[in-house]
Amino acid sequence: MDGSTITLTTDFGETDPYVASMKGVLTKLAPGVPVLDLSHAIPPQEVFEAALFLAGCVPWFPAETVHVVVVDPGVGTERMPIAVRWRGQLLVGPDNGVFTMLARKAPFEGIRRIEHPECRMEPVSATFHGRDVFAPTGAKLAMGMPFEAIGAAVADPVMLSVPEPKRLGNVITGEVIHIDRFGNTITNISDDDIKISNTYVVTVGSHSITGIMRTYGEAPQGAPLALIGSGGLLEIAVNQGNAHRALGLNRGMPVYVET
Amino acid sequence: MDGSTITLTTDFGETDPYVASMKGVLTKLAPGVPVLDLSHAIPPQEVFEAALFLAGCVPWFPAETVHVVVVDPGVGTERMPIAVRWRGQLLVGPDNGVFTMLARKAPFEGIRRIEHPECRMEPVSATFHGRDVFAPTGAKLAMGMPFEAIGAAVADPVMLSVPEPKRLGNVITGEVIHIDRFGNTITNISDDDIKISNTYVVTVGSHSITGIMRTYGEAPQGAPLALIGSGGLLEIAVNQGNAHRALGLNRGMPVYVET
Amino acid sequence: MDGSTITLTTDFGETDPYVASMKGVLTKLAPGVPVLDLSHAIPPQEVFEAALFLAGCVPWFPAETVHVVVVDPGVGTERMPIAVRWRGQLLVGPDNGVFTMLARKAPFEGIRRIEHPECRMEPVSATFHGRDVFAPTGAKLAMGMPFEAIGAAVADPVMLSVPEPKRLGNVITGEVIHIDRFGNTITNISDDDIKISNTYVVTVGSHSITGIMRTYGEAPQGAPLALIGSGGLLEIAVNQGNAHRALGLNRGMPVYVET
Repeated sequence: MDGSTITLTTDFGETDPYVASMKGVLTKLAPGVPVLDLSHAIPPQEVFEAALFLAGCVPWFPAETVHVVVVDPGVGTERMPIAVRWRGQLLVGPDNGVFTMLARKAPFEGIRRIEHPECRMEPVSATFHGRDVFAPTGAKLAMGMPFEAIGAAVADPVMLSVPEPKRLGNVITGEVIHIDRFGNTITNISDDDIKISNTYVVTVGSHSITGIMRTYGEAPQGAPLALIGSGGLLEIAVNQGNAHRALGLNRGMPVYVET
Repeated sequence: MDGSTITLTTDFGETDPYVASMKGVLTKLAPGVPVLDLSHAIPPQEVFEAALFLAGCVPWFPAETVHVVVVDPGVGTERMPIAVRWRGQLLVGPDNGVFTMLARKAPFEGIRRIEHPECRMEPVSATFHGRDVFAPTGAKLAMGMPFEAIGAAVADPVMLSVPEPKRLGNVITGEVIHIDRFGNTITNISDDDIKISNTYVVTVGSHSITGIMRTYGEAPQGAPLALIGSGGLLEIAVNQGNAHRALGLNRGMPVYVET
Repeated sequence: MDGSTITLTTDFGETDPYVASMKGVLTKLAPGVPVLDLSHAIPPQEVFEAALFLAGCVPWFPAETVHVVVVDPGVGTERMPIAVRWRGQLLVGPDNGVFTMLARKAPFEGIRRIEHPECRMEPVSATFHGRDVFAPTGAKLAMGMPFEAIGAAVADPVMLSVPEPKRLGNVITGEVIHIDRFGNTITNISDDDIKISNTYVVTVGSHSITGIMRTYGEAPQGAPLALIGSGGLLEIAVNQGNAHRALGLNRGMPVYVET
């Protein structure tokens, strides 16, 4: 796998030496392989947020990329360490559902339990598998260890139960699943469910918005609008403003689209 | 352009998959080219802050570096996507004035509208040109696409209007343009206007400081001082303290230097 | 030193161009050498936090790695710029004790004052040695300048005084030295002092915890527990919670272990 890249996605933040020690392990075990930070700001122990994050970025990487993912509230318990193959890329992390949203885009091409003795830094700590299991496994895969050598096949990985939009008559009911840095409020209603339209009405909290637009600038500055965002999901935004704060929107709030 | 490096400067933060998906595009289209994060913490949609940031760091990079810059409140509107050449480096981003402060240091050596069909990921979303236009353009430039091939020359790029210090008699009036992480309060008065001196008096808010020093440690611990910072601009600081908080200084406040 | 890597650890944050301009210098002076961010979120001017951080991650890197460290409240004063060799790795930074916790793990293999004229960007500013001294020195070392060429040997580097745990009878008294992102509360009592045990009693603030466990999941969800963390230090945590907030724990609080 010459030409591979290793990426890191964690909830570790930057104030502790956790990410840095993983980078040490990667530098030692995969010399010359580029390491890219995807995010270390996943909210602590929020597996669903991490699953959503990965679905938003992993599809843009080329085959052979190795993603090391550590959002791992169950570290040291019975949860398995796994690696999965997805569209020719490899992802390494805990078997806690963190790959759920990717699996909904395309099926896994393989799932393995991490067992190979070279896929660990001995002694393996009970509290930091990012450094002691996931980073070494990512390094070995990037250096050419065959995926199948990692360990036994896993038939039944953990999957998160994901809130699904529902259609009743001409109304689709979904919910807010993520607030982004700009306060854009992202829902679980996708461009499979709806389309750009002048007549759809989107209701969330006490706000109703008529029309689904193409881009932020189509609404007057400071006005709320609905659009289909860059990830293909319905999003409520305020042109050059913050919908989360201006409209009081939060994760989990129901969203209705009248079509 | 073998040996090139691509850098990223955005207001995207780390909690969303925006930066990560740009890194995916770069990894795919510019394999083997190193990618460096400059900042993803530009305040959301603050084009002037981004312009200031770039002027503070881009001059230190070597020729051939490709900088991808995405602080883009007007995404999806009529604002053009452009690339500029500056001291042999290349910068890619929206035509919204984000390169203004660099242009004041040295003239652009070329400005092109991004039009080449290879400089985009189809379908181009209306809300995320960072991923769909600017990252692919940066990748192509780093892989050797000639600057002139990007698109038509642009004669008249958008420039921000920048607050200028004014001199009246022996008083220079400027303003606070940036507060840094340490609370150091940076003004638009530069070392072209003033020099290190024992007798100059700097006034901001209700505080007057006599003398312009060479470094923080020349003032007693906890005392306010004025100095010429590492970017060549007059700065009000507190030795081992936070001038922003201790002195109540904020962006936009007027600053007077009596020479 | 072909195959070297340069890392960066600073208290500069991401909102200012300080880190980015250091990356410019490294890109210019050490072309082709990978640059890894370790952290830019060391609390401003907190030398002890930086020393702790380095001890937590540097041991995981291979020999030949060059670490550039800038937590430097005394910049521009008489404090020396130095480079140290530690287990075959090289560290560059201010002589203010920032390498203290590494020195306690293994002795320095050499300490040099930075004097070589190539180890600076002229003119050297009085306020930003990260860009003007430490980055160029790191670049030169990564490009093969011999460690001994940097400057004169230093006999007596600054060392921080570090709080030590004390044993009186069957009670060990230590203190909280760091709170991590998850609210885990890390003490200066190490696995040299204590072991995993069902009978030890750990007291901090108004809380007493019986037993020292192996991992977070051994306590009921939301319950406080004591364990030996991945860095070998006694840690008070809450399973899937935040001990810092839930138990009101802070840096400097005394911790008692009854053995």
